[in-house]
Amino acid sequence: MSSVDHFWAVIPAGGAGTRLWPLSRAGAPKFLHDLTGSGRSLLQATVDRLGPLVDDRTVVVTGTAHLPAVARQLPGVAEEYLLAEPTPRDSMAAIGLAAALLERKDPDAVMGSFAADHVIPDGDAFATCVRNAITAAEAGWLVTLGIEPTYAATGFGYIHVGDAMADLPAFHVKEFVEKPSAPVAAQYVASGDYRWNAGMFVVRPTVLLDLLAENDPGFAADLRAIAAGGAEAMARLWPTLPKIALDHAVAEPAASAGRIAVVPGAFDWEDVGDFASLGDLLDPDASGALTVLGDAGLVQSRSSSGLVVTATGRFVAVLGLDDIIIVDTPDALLVAARDHAQDVKAIVNGLKDEGRTDLV
Amino acid sequence: MSSVDHFWAVIPAGGAGTRLWPLSRAGAPKFLHDLTGSGRSLLQATVDRLGPLVDDRTVVVTGTAHLPAVARQLPGVAEEYLLAEPTPRDSMAAIGLAAALLERKDPDAVMGSFAADHVIPDGDAFATCVRNAITAAEAGWLVTLGIEPTYAATGFGYIHVGDAMADLPAFHVKEFVEKPSAPVAAQYVASGDYRWNAGMFVVRPTVLLDLLAENDPGFAADLRAIAAGGAEAMARLWPTLPKIALDHAVAEPAASAGRIAVVPGAFDWEDVGDFASLGDLLDPDASGALTVLGDAGLVQSRSSSGLVVTATGRFVAVLGLDDIIIVDTPDALLVAARDHAQDVKAIVNGLKDEGRTDLV
Repeated sequence: MSSVDHFWAVIPAGGAGTRLWPLSRAGAPKFLHDLTGSGRSLLQATVDRLGPLVDDRTVVVTGTAHLPAVARQLPGVAEEYLLAEPTPRDSMAAIGLAAALLERKDPDAVMGSFAADHVIPDGDAFATCVRNAITAAEAGWLVTLGIEPTYAATGFGYIHVGDAMADLPAFHVKEFVEKPSAPVAAQYVASGDYRWNAGMFVVRPTVLLDLLAENDPGFAADLRAIAAGGAEAMARLWPTLPKIALDHAVAEPAASAGRIAVVPGAFDWEDVGDFASLGDLLDPDASGALTVLGDAGLVQSRSSSGLVVTATGRFVAVLGLDDIIIVDTPDALLVAARDHAQDVKAIVNGLKDEGRTDLV
Repeated sequence: MSSVDHFWAVIPAGGAGTRLWPLSRAGAPKFLHDLTGSGRSLLQATVDRLGPLVDDRTVVVTGTAHLPAVARQLPGVAEEYLLAEPTPRDSMAAIGLAAALLERKDPDAVMGSFAADHVIPDGDAFATCVRNAITAAEAGWLVTLGIEPTYAATGFGYIHVGDAMADLPAFHVKEFVEKPSAPVAAQYVASGDYRWNAGMFVVRPTVLLDLLAENDPGFAADLRAIAAGGAEAMARLWPTLPKIALDHAVAEPAASAGRIAVVPGAFDWEDVGDFASLGDLLDPDASGALTVLGDAGLVQSRSSSGLVVTATGRFVAVLGLDDIIIVDTPDALLVAARDHAQDVKAIVNGLKDEGRTDLV
């Protein structure tokens, strides 16, 4: 399959991944880490996955603090396509900035926005889905990808899928719904009418910005002014942009107005939120063995299961512990029961309160 | 209380402490570590405990490899009293060497032999017991200290106590018995006639060597020849000495012959064998909290109990784990369930088999 002319990948690379501390840090967030043992960080794997569709048309939007690391991880991405957010202003500003720049650079552009920290093992199924989304986006739709649920997840939002379109490989979106309760999630999955919302969008830049302008004309105008005005405009306007997610600023209003399409995808997709889900990702068959992310030769265990992440050269011995999580980094060690994986956030917050910025 | 003229402390500093890996290593065995958080190693604490009885009459016998570390930890012990074993030849050779040297140096000497890696919190009760043992030793007895059992331990040998002596603060020993089964241990403790054998002896050097000579005249003669002949005799004879424990070479035969006395002691005594017993030592009330050996400021925990040993400056977070053992050293990390503390030995043996001498 060849690449798609004028299709651009936009990769917002943000988010701290607090629940993956001490591997993920404010200074080295989740997307910079190889969480799959593939030898590539989540960001690199995202760029790799999109490569066949875009050739070298990849734009990354990240915090200024992470720009050097991103530049080193992605030597194939031109410097002009590595965009720095001076301060975090949520996804509408980040993706809107890329849209405003692409609108000027390539009038025929279609952009696809894909988070830097998702795991999608089946690149071909993903590409097929994106190609369908591009077809719908070229026809003027704001298109979201809807992932087929494999269980009644309560940690994701859902997309309520409507009728199929007559002439496009897509469906109408009835509405976006927030993270549901467990019984509601079960109903969603049983109905077959709901898809997971993975926050992936394909759209012409002008369509995106015009949809934004309908709800917040000043926001869209400022993004276009930054794209036209360069560093001076960025310094002046960026700090004034609203902090709002693209879902709220554009997608939900567009759904209410019947102006958004969804392309179903049946590929595995993981938003690796904490070490419990990372353990599942790395040991999908729940083999009962101890999984190692890093150099497995460093780890010896007896009568144990769970996950060991080795980010140092230290030897690790594990004895008689089931569902254990051990994360070994040079300056901090986490040892947790799997069912306490969420408590990592409390440790990080405690460290922040104590001013231990060196550790968070 | 003043010191006892002519009383010498002999401290055999040997044993690897394999079940305390990775804190204890072949190159830095148990006795060199501060396992109580007192700021003093077990060896230093042993010397401190005996100081009021001996002033500066302390002799340490240790492996050549450990001599520099021992010398640095004990700046108050004269170099001539730091004796090096060229190779390990078990306790009879180590203690017998000290006896042969003291026999020449101080004809009125009484020596007390105390392992370098025991923990005895109540130094006064210990000293009272030793003073009674000295009185019996001055009268020509080989005297052992018998610790009052606090539970039906199966990990120690026992001393079967006989009749009280008429004119000395000591009892006859009926026999030494090996580590008993649990029901037998319970009978021993219930009877009140048995004491733990902590391997502590007080004796005139000449009495000890003469008792040895009755069973192995060549062994005793060689020890005396080494003491008389210096380095040349040591190099020639040491490698030929039998590898045998003092208990088997002297104490058990002497008991059979009715020639050994026991002085009862009621002090707490810990032979810190593994991390489970170290956890008990550091948290005798079983408070249910997480105990930290090292800098407690480095450790944060939630819903956890057990023991964390921090031997690095790293931060350690522990979440949702009861009876956990975490030992954090620069090149190796142990994470174990308390009831698997004994399995540490298997890890160490595995590392030895793999030639990982850097880690053991």
